[in-house]
Amino acid sequence: MKDHLVIFDTTLRDGEQSPGASMTREEKIRVARQLEKMRVDVIEAGFAAASPGDFESIQAIAQAIKDSTVCSLARASENDIARSGEAIRPAKSGRIHTFIATSPIHMEKKLRMTPDQVVEQAVKSIGWARQYTDDVEFSAEDAGRSEIDFLCRIFEAVIKAGAKTINVPDTVGYNIPSQYAETMRQLIERVPNSDKVIWSVHCHNDLGLAVSNSLAAVLAGARQVECTINGLGERAGNAALEEIVMAVRTRADVFPVETRIDTTQIVSASKLVSQITGYPVQPNKAVVGANAFAHESGIHQDGVLKHRETYEIMRAQDVGWAQNKLVLGKHSGRNAFKSRLQELGIELESDEALNAAFARFKELADRKHEIFDEDLHALVSDEVVTPEQEHYKLVYSRVTSETGEMPCASIILNVGGVEQKAEACGGGPVDATFKAIESIAGSGAELLLYSVNAITTGTDAQGEVTTRLARDGRIVNGNGADTDIVIASARSYLNALNKLASTLDKVRAQGDDI
Amino acid sequence: MKDHLVIFDTTLRDGEQSPGASMTREEKIRVARQLEKMRVDVIEAGFAAASPGDFESIQAIAQAIKDSTVCSLARASENDIARSGEAIRPAKSGRIHTFIATSPIHMEKKLRMTPDQVVEQAVKSIGWARQYTDDVEFSAEDAGRSEIDFLCRIFEAVIKAGAKTINVPDTVGYNIPSQYAETMRQLIERVPNSDKVIWSVHCHNDLGLAVSNSLAAVLAGARQVECTINGLGERAGNAALEEIVMAVRTRADVFPVETRIDTTQIVSASKLVSQITGYPVQPNKAVVGANAFAHESGIHQDGVLKHRETYEIMRAQDVGWAQNKLVLGKHSGRNAFKSRLQELGIELESDEALNAAFARFKELADRKHEIFDEDLHALVSDEVVTPEQEHYKLVYSRVTSETGEMPCASIILNVGGVEQKAEACGGGPVDATFKAIESIAGSGAELLLYSVNAITTGTDAQGEVTTRLARDGRIVNGNGADTDIVIASARSYLNALNKLASTLDKVRAQGDDI
Repeated sequence: MKDHLVIFDTTLRDGEQSPGASMTREEKIRVARQLEKMRVDVIEAGFAAASPGDFESIQAIAQAIKDSTVCSLARASENDIARSGEAIRPAKSGRIHTFIATSPIHMEKKLRMTPDQVVEQAVKSIGWARQYTDDVEFSAEDAGRSEIDFLCRIFEAVIKAGAKTINVPDTVGYNIPSQYAETMRQLIERVPNSDKVIWSVHCHNDLGLAVSNSLAAVLAGARQVECTINGLGERAGNAALEEIVMAVRTRADVFPVETRIDTTQIVSASKLVSQITGYPVQPNKAVVGANAFAHESGIHQDGVLKHRETYEIMRAQDVGWAQNKLVLGKHSGRNAFKSRLQELGIELESDEALNAAFARFKELADRKHEIFDEDLHALVSDEVVTPEQEHYKLVYSRVTSETGEMPCASIILNVGGVEQKAEACGGGPVDATFKAIESIAGSGAELLLYSVNAITTGTDAQGEVTTRLARDGRIVNGNGADTDIVIASARSYLNALNKLASTLDKVRAQGDDI
Repeated sequence: MKDHLVIFDTTLRDGEQSPGASMTREEKIRVARQLEKMRVDVIEAGFAAASPGDFESIQAIAQAIKDSTVCSLARASENDIARSGEAIRPAKSGRIHTFIATSPIHMEKKLRMTPDQVVEQAVKSIGWARQYTDDVEFSAEDAGRSEIDFLCRIFEAVIKAGAKTINVPDTVGYNIPSQYAETMRQLIERVPNSDKVIWSVHCHNDLGLAVSNSLAAVLAGARQVECTINGLGERAGNAALEEIVMAVRTRADVFPVETRIDTTQIVSASKLVSQITGYPVQPNKAVVGANAFAHESGIHQDGVLKHRETYEIMRAQDVGWAQNKLVLGKHSGRNAFKSRLQELGIELESDEALNAAFARFKELADRKHEIFDEDLHALVSDEVVTPEQEHYKLVYSRVTSETGEMPCASIILNVGGVEQKAEACGGGPVDATFKAIESIAGSGAELLLYSVNAITTGTDAQGEVTTRLARDGRIVNGNGADTDIVIASARSYLNALNKLASTLDKVRAQGDDI
């Protein structure tokens, strides 16, 4: 009998801290539903004290999710923990995850606290958290650069205070596997009552080692891995859930653990998170990249087909590739549309929202023969925006691309209920359209990144455009999808402007983060 | 005094085997020049026997490169080795890298040879190779699944025959670090005269462990790592050069080795390979991803700026970020243009090619205020195509994008010297343009992938479009860049069609590959 490895997904918390990856409440619920469907054990849904928006998202996820534990992150302060406790109250199974920095550099420069004060604060925090739930996790921020003796001391104290999971994060992605495993081994050996808790890892990928550090720790006794879909997360990201899960499964001969993950949901989860955050997955990404299971040299060759195992160690269908289902077409009705959305975990809030989405669907079906699940996700991503957040709306756009001519765009926007018109010329039709929008909006934002990916294959695929804007140190990603790339670009730019105009801002103290 | 770690780059061989990543000879030379500038020790330039195109590319690189060893891959056959030997003959320092499979499954199912026959063939191959160079490398294909006793036996034999580098590839990406390191340790311990050779690793990333497997082997005694820029390579790719180099450098306290790599050239190399192959780098990629050094929570916060080391373990400038130099503008002359191209390692073959590129540059400068190095790379990528390869050429295109209207494109192509006109309507301006092109070309190719990335920031940036087409089991990537996204798309589609029409095909036996 193998040990159970707890899969703790933090796409909605650490993943969301990627520049511009902020998600709306509705988007977070869709991701959470997919994580539940995939049978993730713990969903870290956010950082309740960071903003009212974060709080509400966690609460809504706690209400919606039945089969996974819902968790909120909290600094080791009474207020943070109270907010987390309130946010997870509706959950069938709720966890509070509290943390404090334990490395000399962080204690001195950031917390300005002595080691004694840090231990005292940590112990108090466990007490506060246990007023809300018995499922309390403690993290030693920057454990990777902390002294082992101090880690033993603080972990002993928090276990005594009632923490059930002890997390050892490599916050800055500095560790290498052999060393990280040795730390985990020593902790489990030296800390009294270490067998009463679950040891956890949380690794960052700055040197490309997040997955292998996590796996090395599992071999040394860790039984929870904190990870994200597609390895999303600050800087170079976190350990990728799909790689952790498939490594443990593929190398069952080496790992004394098993997860309860439904691996056939992995590719759907990857695509959903990529669409919602606007973070593309590179083709040569393990497990979920478009090439992960392709062989140029072997494509049509019998040898490979007959003896798949000569080159493949996993099967594409095991992680959910090739389940790109043709679901709807031009003649599909309102009910078929609605029930497919429900199967995808998408619940529109009102009949109006459903009607708007259905109208959009019909319009899309006129231009595109086959409508896939990915198209529906993109379509509702555009539609689901709460109307009051939509300060800028696209009414009309027109622009011509012609070799040797400078393109000029005409555009009409609805700005807070009033229609405004503008024209502008630019280096290309997208540039001209953006300039026309800017001449109305006057945002002064800087365009940091622009990318387009086709949602499915074929020339009539929708293009999904991501536009990353920066202003006054804030960064937002706007998304827009359409079979017309210029219109998709306009939608994406407006989506980014609407995010800049909204007050979804997070109040998060500097680097408070594991 | 630390040991030297040999960095063996196989972007031009294993990287090029990614679906559609085939490069022209000119493109390969540009990549090789950048690798030389970065001070890579060994450049694996191709697989000489795979095609006449591969042979010529290796030969041209062997002529052009002075400061790195130039290597060709060869199966363990007299003909393959002879072709490799001819191809590297012009090199100042040339290597032949020969391989044969050693795992039971590969020997039985693919080679249909007994272990004795495999050893005999390997030994003969070293002898053939040594007729051309003393620098001979031997790889045991699928070593990760081979029996250790057999590996010891074959390695002993090839060392005796004169192999100087012994490579232990994990061809299918099945290993985990602790196990892989143990294999390396045992081999070095057991194989007679193991101290007379350099032990090498070549890891694939199917489980996300290529980099850590490589590093674990280095700790166990390996002194060469085979890797690629951006981790390009079949399926989930190879170990990423940038992660290997930066891990060894950042954790100099742990690794008893150092490389001679000029790390400030890493980002330029990453961008160049991404542009040429059309393989985007995801933002949350370690070292070379757009976010690798960004902190959402810390961007404008004094704490992070003052105490950078609290969250950053590497400096962005050490890997060449923020060297995005403004090089040229509207008023730059022909000489400035030419000398900047030379600095970038780009040599145009004729005055006509230079004139065409300069005309294109002037046209671009009219639409774009600032011309960066990336723009020049994109511009010559479009221009440098040998005219006889360009069967289809864009003469004129026009299409209008308008909300509520179906876009129809007019297009004129020059097809093998004859102008042809077509019109077509589609779901968007790009779809309409592709359909118009198809109505002339009638290729019947399937569009597998379409993506656009802005080359630099700002709304007037050029969009670089990648179009991946498949026909009869062949896959090609087409690239096109322009400030007008529709025109860039048309160029990219035509580039892919030209590749499909060309005879650059490779003749490579099934899965002959380490």
